[in-house]
Amino acid sequence: MPVGTKATVKGVLPRDLRELGATMILANTYHLHLRPGEDVIARLGGLHKVMAWDGPILTDSGGYQVFSLGHLAKVDEDGVSLKSVVDGAAVRLTPESVIDIERKLGADVAMAFDHCPSDPTDRAQVAAAVARTHGWLGRCVRRHREHGGEETGQALFPIVQGGIFEDLRRESVASALEHGCVGHAIGGVSVGESREWARAAVELSAPLLPADRPRYLMGVGTPEDFFDAIERGVDLFDCVTPTRHARNHRAFTSQGEINLRNARWREDTSPLDPTCGCTCCRNYSRGALRHLCTSDEMLGGMLLTLHNLSFFFELMRRIRTAIFEDRLAELRRDVLATIG
Amino acid sequence: MPVGTKATVKGVLPRDLRELGATMILANTYHLHLRPGEDVIARLGGLHKVMAWDGPILTDSGGYQVFSLGHLAKVDEDGVSLKSVVDGAAVRLTPESVIDIERKLGADVAMAFDHCPSDPTDRAQVAAAVARTHGWLGRCVRRHREHGGEETGQALFPIVQGGIFEDLRRESVASALEHGCVGHAIGGVSVGESREWARAAVELSAPLLPADRPRYLMGVGTPEDFFDAIERGVDLFDCVTPTRHARNHRAFTSQGEINLRNARWREDTSPLDPTCGCTCCRNYSRGALRHLCTSDEMLGGMLLTLHNLSFFFELMRRIRTAIFEDRLAELRRDVLATIG
Repeated sequence: MPVGTKATVKGVLPRDLRELGATMILANTYHLHLRPGEDVIARLGGLHKVMAWDGPILTDSGGYQVFSLGHLAKVDEDGVSLKSVVDGAAVRLTPESVIDIERKLGADVAMAFDHCPSDPTDRAQVAAAVARTHGWLGRCVRRHREHGGEETGQALFPIVQGGIFEDLRRESVASALEHGCVGHAIGGVSVGESREWARAAVELSAPLLPADRPRYLMGVGTPEDFFDAIERGVDLFDCVTPTRHARNHRAFTSQGEINLRNARWREDTSPLDPTCGCTCCRNYSRGALRHLCTSDEMLGGMLLTLHNLSFFFELMRRIRTAIFEDRLAELRRDVLATIG
Repeated sequence: MPVGTKATVKGVLPRDLRELGATMILANTYHLHLRPGEDVIARLGGLHKVMAWDGPILTDSGGYQVFSLGHLAKVDEDGVSLKSVVDGAAVRLTPESVIDIERKLGADVAMAFDHCPSDPTDRAQVAAAVARTHGWLGRCVRRHREHGGEETGQALFPIVQGGIFEDLRRESVASALEHGCVGHAIGGVSVGESREWARAAVELSAPLLPADRPRYLMGVGTPEDFFDAIERGVDLFDCVTPTRHARNHRAFTSQGEINLRNARWREDTSPLDPTCGCTCCRNYSRGALRHLCTSDEMLGGMLLTLHNLSFFFELMRRIRTAIFEDRLAELRRDVLATIG
């Protein structure tokens, strides 16, 4: 899923997202609650209308923002008090209010409101967050049912926490499974912990989640992360990397990552990635892209966004085919050997 | 012509420009000379390749930049010394160097290097600029011929100056016509003079230029300006207004200009312009656009750019049809009555 935090995947027209192969996209409950507000979005016809996107939309619940805002957020048993990044105003989120917001937004998949602990290696903190996430999930499920539940076409995905601790991950999975939801997410992974621990957390959680329902790994990641997670049974990802890197003029290519501002591309007439068939690679040389990027022209970020998304979607298409043809390990070797 | 100063019409993919109906676009000699430099563009295959644009490209000569840089530019009989807006370095432009640059860029229409006086009402200054522009034109034509002239597929357009003075405009037209060029431009008009004087300058110059060759009015303008100029026989325009206004979240509509940041559009579910069929108007409400604009999302400027260009192209299509059907005055009345 490309990330459209504030109801737009930055720098891309929906038509181009579709052409690139995007099916489901992500938006953010916390950011949209602040601006323009869920009531405004509802009056404008809901998130699909506002985003001009007729495919599925998943809304992140704001739990991750509580983590990323750090000391600006205060967690208590009932919910979270935090400050608006727009105007500094006090904001209160509870499991019930988050589900209400996601309902008004018109999300196809509403994420449960979880507590993502700031240090995944601090056992006491993680244990408390797992317990709180469990309690909050029950409240999310009740509120979601009050709105009509899945019958209305809106799914609710619980989020598994547990940091780097095997028993706490198991406990969190068990509590997530109590509610028979149609899909499940693994959270608390892309929070600054080491790669090894992140892999271990996925390895612990993913196989315990039902294989006949989507398993969604939140906020991950790089091509290597995708292979790691997919080998453990993960189906769904979101990550800002392709779009954010693009706006910083960094491109993913079949030969590895490159920075288009680098002077070495100044007179380079070759395409960004000779193996890619996207609008950017079909029409522009690295030298032309470098000019757009060093001149800080919008078109530089726009073209690299198209390319990076194309790169990620193409990788996912190849992975899907490899799974069906039972040669995922081989593809992993080939891809990681060339991108370095 | 949409304006693509630095080798990109800001915020639009060439594919979308084409779909909107753009045929010819403009780029700027002075800006591209500074960055990335005409030699780099030549090595990258020329401006068409760099811009991914296979239609005609006209390059402005830098004369207007000399005007707009004001005291940063020093004009002498041989040429102009000015400072780079990129890094403050000294830059020297002469009629010969400008034609050399436009040749290396690969422009389809190279504009002659003119002297655009800073005050179109200062007779002594304007008279000197007309004389200088005349001398420089001769040098441009010679240099252009040394490169193979029009036979190579590159046209050279002289620029008529003369400020607000009838005799000086006549004198400048006469000197422009000496060279039998395939098209002619009227310059020195969009330089801060009053609307009335600007109209008078066009009224003086345009009818004196050959009707069987394009008459290009530089840097103009608004829908009303277009009607004024077209009634006098002008064929070709360039203006940053549609794209620049769009990035400032101002939109041209059939009901007049509106600012999308305005709170009144917050919950407005109607399209930006109900009479418009562009991507923006087909897919987004004013409320959704306002959210994108107040959140400073790239997509806001991108969508308004598509719309504003669509508005200008559609106006031009209607004007062309009206000319063929001999009802230009009627169309003018209808259009100006609704846009106010």
